[in-house]
Amino acid sequence: MKIVIIGGVAAGAKAAAKTKRLLPDSEVDIYTADTNVSYSTCGLPFYIEGVFEDYRKLIVRPKSEFEKSGVNIHLEHCVTKIIPDKKKIEVKKLKTNEIFTVNYDKLVIATGAGPVTKGFEHVIDKKNFYTLRTLEDGVAIRNKMREINHITLIGGGYINIELLEAFVKNGKNVTLIERSPFIMPILDEEISAIVQNYILENSNKQVKILNEDSVEKFIGEENVTGILTQKGVGFETDMVVLSIGVKPVVDIAEDAGIEIGSTGAIKVNSRMETSIQDIYACGDCAEKVHIISNTPVWIPLGSTANKEGRTAAMNLCGDNKDFEGVLGSAITRYLGLNISKTGLTEREARRLGYDTVSTVITKKDKAGYMPEVENITLKLIADMRSHRILGAQAIGCGDADKKIDSISVGLANHLEVKDLLDIDLTYAPPFSASVDILHSAARIIQSKIKN
Amino acid sequence: MKIVIIGGVAAGAKAAAKTKRLLPDSEVDIYTADTNVSYSTCGLPFYIEGVFEDYRKLIVRPKSEFEKSGVNIHLEHCVTKIIPDKKKIEVKKLKTNEIFTVNYDKLVIATGAGPVTKGFEHVIDKKNFYTLRTLEDGVAIRNKMREINHITLIGGGYINIELLEAFVKNGKNVTLIERSPFIMPILDEEISAIVQNYILENSNKQVKILNEDSVEKFIGEENVTGILTQKGVGFETDMVVLSIGVKPVVDIAEDAGIEIGSTGAIKVNSRMETSIQDIYACGDCAEKVHIISNTPVWIPLGSTANKEGRTAAMNLCGDNKDFEGVLGSAITRYLGLNISKTGLTEREARRLGYDTVSTVITKKDKAGYMPEVENITLKLIADMRSHRILGAQAIGCGDADKKIDSISVGLANHLEVKDLLDIDLTYAPPFSASVDILHSAARIIQSKIKN
Repeated sequence: MKIVIIGGVAAGAKAAAKTKRLLPDSEVDIYTADTNVSYSTCGLPFYIEGVFEDYRKLIVRPKSEFEKSGVNIHLEHCVTKIIPDKKKIEVKKLKTNEIFTVNYDKLVIATGAGPVTKGFEHVIDKKNFYTLRTLEDGVAIRNKMREINHITLIGGGYINIELLEAFVKNGKNVTLIERSPFIMPILDEEISAIVQNYILENSNKQVKILNEDSVEKFIGEENVTGILTQKGVGFETDMVVLSIGVKPVVDIAEDAGIEIGSTGAIKVNSRMETSIQDIYACGDCAEKVHIISNTPVWIPLGSTANKEGRTAAMNLCGDNKDFEGVLGSAITRYLGLNISKTGLTEREARRLGYDTVSTVITKKDKAGYMPEVENITLKLIADMRSHRILGAQAIGCGDADKKIDSISVGLANHLEVKDLLDIDLTYAPPFSASVDILHSAARIIQSKIKN
Repeated sequence: MKIVIIGGVAAGAKAAAKTKRLLPDSEVDIYTADTNVSYSTCGLPFYIEGVFEDYRKLIVRPKSEFEKSGVNIHLEHCVTKIIPDKKKIEVKKLKTNEIFTVNYDKLVIATGAGPVTKGFEHVIDKKNFYTLRTLEDGVAIRNKMREINHITLIGGGYINIELLEAFVKNGKNVTLIERSPFIMPILDEEISAIVQNYILENSNKQVKILNEDSVEKFIGEENVTGILTQKGVGFETDMVVLSIGVKPVVDIAEDAGIEIGSTGAIKVNSRMETSIQDIYACGDCAEKVHIISNTPVWIPLGSTANKEGRTAAMNLCGDNKDFEGVLGSAITRYLGLNISKTGLTEREARRLGYDTVSTVITKKDKAGYMPEVENITLKLIADMRSHRILGAQAIGCGDADKKIDSISVGLANHLEVKDLLDIDLTYAPPFSASVDILHSAARIIQSKIKN
């Protein structure tokens, strides 16, 4: 059996490794336009910051190890076409522009996601204008950042928050431009507002945030040297990083007639099968199901890519494995502030028609007399009709991540408000409060439901 | 309405405060032999260590605040008898030995637990022999510890592990005597063994542990000056702390004809009602139901006491509130090693007749390239027949507590192995690994179930 995998960062690399383990006699080939396989893009901001010096630490499994196990890796090979009728792909070797075709018995599409650049086509090639996707992008941003003083970040989502921390820790001045009233618009607004205030108060005046604004004009020739915003703010800058969102890379799949879902990503079933037989899709290029709303969503994350790659491999090898979907769990941090969510935000839930009930509370995460005590602010959201928990957001210097992971495990099992009222969480003074913030929030929601 | 509460540490204090909030016009009285109310006994080891200087930091709600809210506190008043027929209690004022009776409409028994001292009656009154239960015990142990060099701890459970850390950090030498093959016998043996090795390797040679041994003879008159063990080990010591277990304080309840459960604690239903009308019991003196096994258990913990006190108050005030039970979640730490469990141990599960399947794995808790990465060792236990998760134990310098709390929320909702295979936990390099130890452990168990 000949298995061909397009893309080799997270889902593709996982699918290849797992397939070779399950079917050692199969032929497994990865084709990728990239110069590396199997690396952690999520770690790039920390490499850029200087948390570690060698970017190769981000490589999960080196090419040589794949090859030793019998997986063939074709770097700098761009797949230009899928021909399902003939069970073939067309490949272009980037170094020589040579084009050839490759047969497959099973095909895995793991083409990932790329940065949204719409509206920035005219500046994308300027010398000091960056997006962050590959290891090479990371190395380039890190090297440039060290030479200069002022950076402009366009977009205020996860990636740019992590880059902001990296730049601030390196003593840089940063202007961040975000269309929404607050950064981190993936959270509900009252939570985003706290995050933004924390950033402004804890960044030693190195950070300026321009909200509800966007770039009107870039100044400069080879380099961007200045920016003028729609609201009329003008400033000089030495470097720009654009991160206003990502989009699934689906062009060759779409051209081949593979069904694209309503989210713009490749439609797959729970076995990661596309609409065409023997073709699987997984990772950032594939659509997912949201476990709470049971609706199609596109939430591209490395941890999900891993699971989907594994699921695709198991199924194409003859096993029977379902991937149930995602909860939208996500986390980041900014200079000590942990920022975490799972499930639906209240805004998302209302848009989907839920009659929501929610509370936002702040509480100590440990016994008040312990020196390591910190605050957490938690927003808990439930459905007034079913009493089911729909989602939660937690931020704070305390263990916000711990609370959100607890809720996540519950959410996979139809967690209801009543389940949290007296939940037996571990308690000892260095770890938690005897009345946990989850208890308190659930009790407030319970009383709102009753009245 | 006149509500009388016997005991005022955790459950009693909570029941009083909640009752007064729900029924502001009621008369609420706490009677306790103690010299304080509403304090955190769980915090005593940290006070003893010197994490903070003023023991009053352990007071959750001062007496004056209770009184301001209208709750009457009667310190150093020992309740000697309950007379259900007459709806009366008999009270002895300890300072004067005066005896009087008090009427009640509703009675709450929150008499807590006391240290097991069986077999030590002849030494319990020696000057340097201690047990730890009240604030006064804590103050006495702290003061004595500072004057001397060598301490003997009898018993290797939670309290003594925390005291061990306190003493080691204060530069003391400690000999710990434990009947079991390893300390922390509440955990499965392979996990206890790791904990014991960690303690021995990380305590700067200040700690000796004598396993499968017990005291044969105490030497000394006014003070214990030396110990001879059954195995023939002899050593000098300056101070002894006994902590071989606790037992529910049920004597006056039993005398009154209130039903005692099979565990030796007061039998209650999910509304915290005892077998006699208008008498409730809650906290460490009351029996609990284990949510996994649905059997009566006695697991005395401050966090549970809080919830039960609240439940008793709500029901006696006319509300309708059930307390579903406990999971046996517990946590402690020793010099950076977090030690945590929830649900049944494999030993407990087998004793209850489950056909268990389990795995023990060690994994990094965060991305390997992050400087804060640490290991966790996780034992996950499931039922071969129902595939339900029965319990978990996690230890390590990493976020063991986070893993166990996640499992706890799942356990309250009949978590199965399949629910963990692809669970959408929050992932970012400073917080977690993209393939979490929960995923890895569940996958191993899943493959054991299949084969």
